[in-house]
Parts: sequence; structure tokens; C-alpha cells
Amino acid sequence: MTGKSPVVAVVGTGLIGTSLGLALKSSGYCETVLGHSRTRRTAEHAMVSGALDGILENLEGVAEADIVLLCAPVGAIIAHLRQLAGLEMRSRLILDVGSIKAPIMKAAGEAGLGEIFVGGHPMAGSEKSGPSAASAGLFEGKTFFLAPTAETSEEAFEEARALVAATGANPVEIDADEHDRIVALTSHLPYLLASALSGLAGEQSGDLAHVRDALGGVFRDMTRVAGGSPEMWADILKNNASNVREWLQEFVQNAQSIIAAADNPEELKKALRSLRAAHRELLK
Amino acid sequence: MTGKSPVVAVVGTGLIGTSLGLALKSSGYCETVLGHSRTRRTAEHAMVSGALDGILENLEGVAEADIVLLCAPVGAIIAHLRQLAGLEMRSRLILDVGSIKAPIMKAAGEAGLGEIFVGGHPMAGSEKSGPSAASAGLFEGKTFFLAPTAETSEEAFEEARALVAATGANPVEIDADEHDRIVALTSHLPYLLASALSGLAGEQSGDLAHVRDALGGVFRDMTRVAGGSPEMWADILKNNASNVREWLQEFVQNAQSIIAAADNPEELKKALRSLRAAHRELLK
Repeated sequence: MTGKSPVVAVVGTGLIGTSLGLALKSSGYCETVLGHSRTRRTAEHAMVSGALDGILENLEGVAEADIVLLCAPVGAIIAHLRQLAGLEMRSRLILDVGSIKAPIMKAAGEAGLGEIFVGGHPMAGSEKSGPSAASAGLFEGKTFFLAPTAETSEEAFEEARALVAATGANPVEIDADEHDRIVALTSHLPYLLASALSGLAGEQSGDLAHVRDALGGVFRDMTRVAGGSPEMWADILKNNASNVREWLQEFVQNAQSIIAAADNPEELKKALRSLRAAHRELLK
Repeated sequence: MTGKSPVVAVVGTGLIGTSLGLALKSSGYCETVLGHSRTRRTAEHAMVSGALDGILENLEGVAEADIVLLCAPVGAIIAHLRQLAGLEMRSRLILDVGSIKAPIMKAAGEAGLGEIFVGGHPMAGSEKSGPSAASAGLFEGKTFFLAPTAETSEEAFEEARALVAATGANPVEIDADEHDRIVALTSHLPYLLASALSGLAGEQSGDLAHVRDALGGVFRDMTRVAGGSPEMWADILKNNASNVREWLQEFVQNAQSIIAAADNPEELKKALRSLRAAHRELLK
């Protein structure tokens, strides 16, 4: 960065937006963060936490900021991009943090904002949400995916990289479609599985009196993500349904083939050994 | 319990067997615990930890104990029961801790040991295994299922109850078949799902370079159980395959119906809300 400290506008002051404000100010990346939120109370909460220096009453106000961070759910980010389409933007970067990239990138292009737009996604979710769960250290050491549009300028992309580095996260460049396919596998499919498992156990707990007694740490760990916001997850699944469907199909085939091997103990043991090796290799 | 302190024999001195020895001695339930293990080194390790007062070189030695605890994997417990069939047992209780009950209960009956046999299963597993992970507090506050055979005497069942209470666990009487159906849902299906998910992500991590970058807490929580012993899990899945297959089928239908609703945002949101409610209700 050269010249004076940029003015950053955050749209959506929930967990991620508020944490970005805190991280960017505490790192010295910028001095001034302005915030806009659908509900004013959320923005006021973010201001009390020190993440914001002022509240923008209208979305249109962000057009004056140097950097715009769109931190709402996917559907709302798309709606915001459409609203920004008609404005004279003086911003040099618009970065979003939506969990899915392709539909957002498309909306940015259609809004004529492709040159200054970069799609972002920090791998820093939580079951918690809202500004009260925010912290300056939320992104520390986490992957922060960055996807350029076909028209993104080199300057805008470098600014996005510098901003992400200032939060303590690791900027990782990725193609938007590849991103969506990957997070469908590593995050959206797991949520679907956790929810389906919770639903199945819930249905059965009436008939099978001891289901609750048998719920241990495995079940708790496995279904933790099912405690997340249904609104947020509905927004995600809706926007990434075809990728999730494809992975689900492959997943089911894998699961069926494992249990099919149960009739052949040696084959089963071999399969489970190789699955444990895959697990260790992934998380090492 | 009346009369003098019982002599307890533990067969299989891994995590559960060693922890039972420690818990029963520290609670004052008994003074003497003898142990037998397939590999002598494991029994020596349990002895050093204070769980055992002596090592039985041969399985046959357990016939002299008042109480016999079978703490091996399911397949090995069945083999032990067959070996005990021919002996003059002076024991008043044989309690096992296998993860599946029906095939073990059947083996106990066939061995002519039904009257003194109680099937047990503490909900106190761990990804860890072996005597070094053992502790006297492992069972504290946990459910300890107890399933009588058709012939189990009232005395044997009450002894099992008292023993379990001495470990700090909550004894919960259950039918063996119901037990196996329930743990297939709450534990064996989750293991299968976690392993299948690890396998799918592992397969893809070659082609999709950024799969690793996208693995966050959700994936880690969800697949933790896939790090467990392949030998132990093969033994479990083999012995409970038909229950696991049935649940997998219902599970897949649930998962498919959730993602099918993705085309109707309101229906999807409603479904996810009710799944979160089921999750909260189960784990409250």
C-alpha cells in the first residue's frame, strides 16, 4: 500500500465483518472502518466493539470508500452487488467473504464491477455468529481464498492480497468454480451429513428409548455443525446445490462399498486401514 | 455385595480392561484384580499402572475368579466364551464390554454360561487405545448398558449393576437386540460416514489442489472417529453389518431429501430449522 490509509466500508457487521474491522484496524492496515448493516442495532454493536468508526445509514454510502468488504450471506451479497451497479464507485477494491464464489462473481460482472471485484472466502467459520463472537484474531493462520473475476485488475487483486495478509490469514488464489466444488466437499456436504444424522437420530429417539443414553462424543463431534444457523446454511445449500448433490452421490457409493465389504473381514480391515491413512494424510 | 472382597479377573487389558481394574480397585469394590492378555507385554503394562495385582498366563485361570470381565474386541470375546465352555467355572458373574451384544449373548448361551452372564457396554470409547490411555475415571457419569441373557440369574444381574455403579457409570438395562440397533445408529453409522468422507476427500486431494486448504474445524470434528483402530472397527462392522446397512439406507434417504429441497428455499429453511431443533433436543 502507498499513500494515505484507506477508508474501508464493511457491509454486514456479523461475525466475519466485525472481525475484519477489528483485524484491519489492529494491524494498522487502515484507520477508518465504516459499517452498514441491514439492522442498525447490529452495526451499533460492532461500533461498541471497536470494529467501526462510523455507521453508514444507506448502502449507497459505501461508494465513497476506498475498499468495500461485502460480509453478508451469499444471497444478500448478490443483492448488494445489484444495488451498487448503478452507482459511481470511487472504490479501488470490492472484496466479499461469501461461502460460495461462482454466483457472486457472476453478479459482480453483471453489475459492471468485475475490474475492482475479488471474491474472497476465509476458512474461519464458527457455530457462533454475530458481532459478539467477533475477534481481531479470527483469521490468524487460516486460509483466505481469493478468486479473481475475468476482469479483475492486477492492482485490485494485490490490494486484496495485502488486506488478507494484514488480518493474519494466508491468501490462497483459487478459481471460483474450483472453490465451490471444494467447499461443497469439505464443508457443505459435512453439514448435510451432520443434519441428516441428527434428523435420523431425532426421529428414532421416540421409538428407541435408549438412543439418548447411547449418544457419546462421536455423535457430538460429528453433528456439531448441525447446530449452525439454518438461514445461513439454506442460503449456502441453495447456491451450491449441484456440487453438493454430486458429492453426495459419490459419498453414498463410498459408504455403501465399505459396508458391503463387511462380509469379507480381511477386505474390510484393508479398506478401513486405507481410509484411516487417508484421514491422517489429510489432517497432518 | 456381602462377604469378602471378590477376586476379579480381567481378560484383555487394553483401555477398557485396564480402566475397569483401576476404577474397581480405587472405589473399594475389590482388592484383587488379576489380568490375562493375548500379549503378555500389555498385561505387564496394566500391572505397572496399578490396575492388576497379578497376571494369569492362561485364560483357563479365570475360572477361579469370582467375577470375570471380558474386555477384548467382539470377535475375541466370542472366542473366549467358547474356550470357557468346557471349564468348571466357580465365578458368579461374567460381564463383557463388547460394542455389540447379540452375537456375544448367543455365544454365552451356547457355552452354557447364560445364567452367570451379563452383556455390558460402557459408552466410554475413545480414539485412544491401550493401557496407557486408561484411567480410573473413564466411566464417571457415562452410560453403561447391561443386557441380561434369557437365563441370567437375578443375583448375577444385581452383581453387574453394583460393579458398574462402583465405576461411577450409570447402569442402564437394555435388550441386546435393541442395543445393537441403537449403537449402529449412534456410533457405527457415524464411524462409517466419517471414514467414507475421509476417503472421498483423500481421493480428491490429488486432483483438487486446494482440498487441504479448505479443511477446517467442521471436517476435523466430523471425521475424528475415522482415526480409530481399523481392526477394532472391522470387528464391530462385521458383527453389526445388517443394522448398519439398514440405518445407512434411511440416512441416505434423509440426506437426499434435504438437498432435494434446495430448489425451494422456504421449504429448505424449514427443514433445516427442524433438523437443528432435533440436534438440540438430542444433545440437551
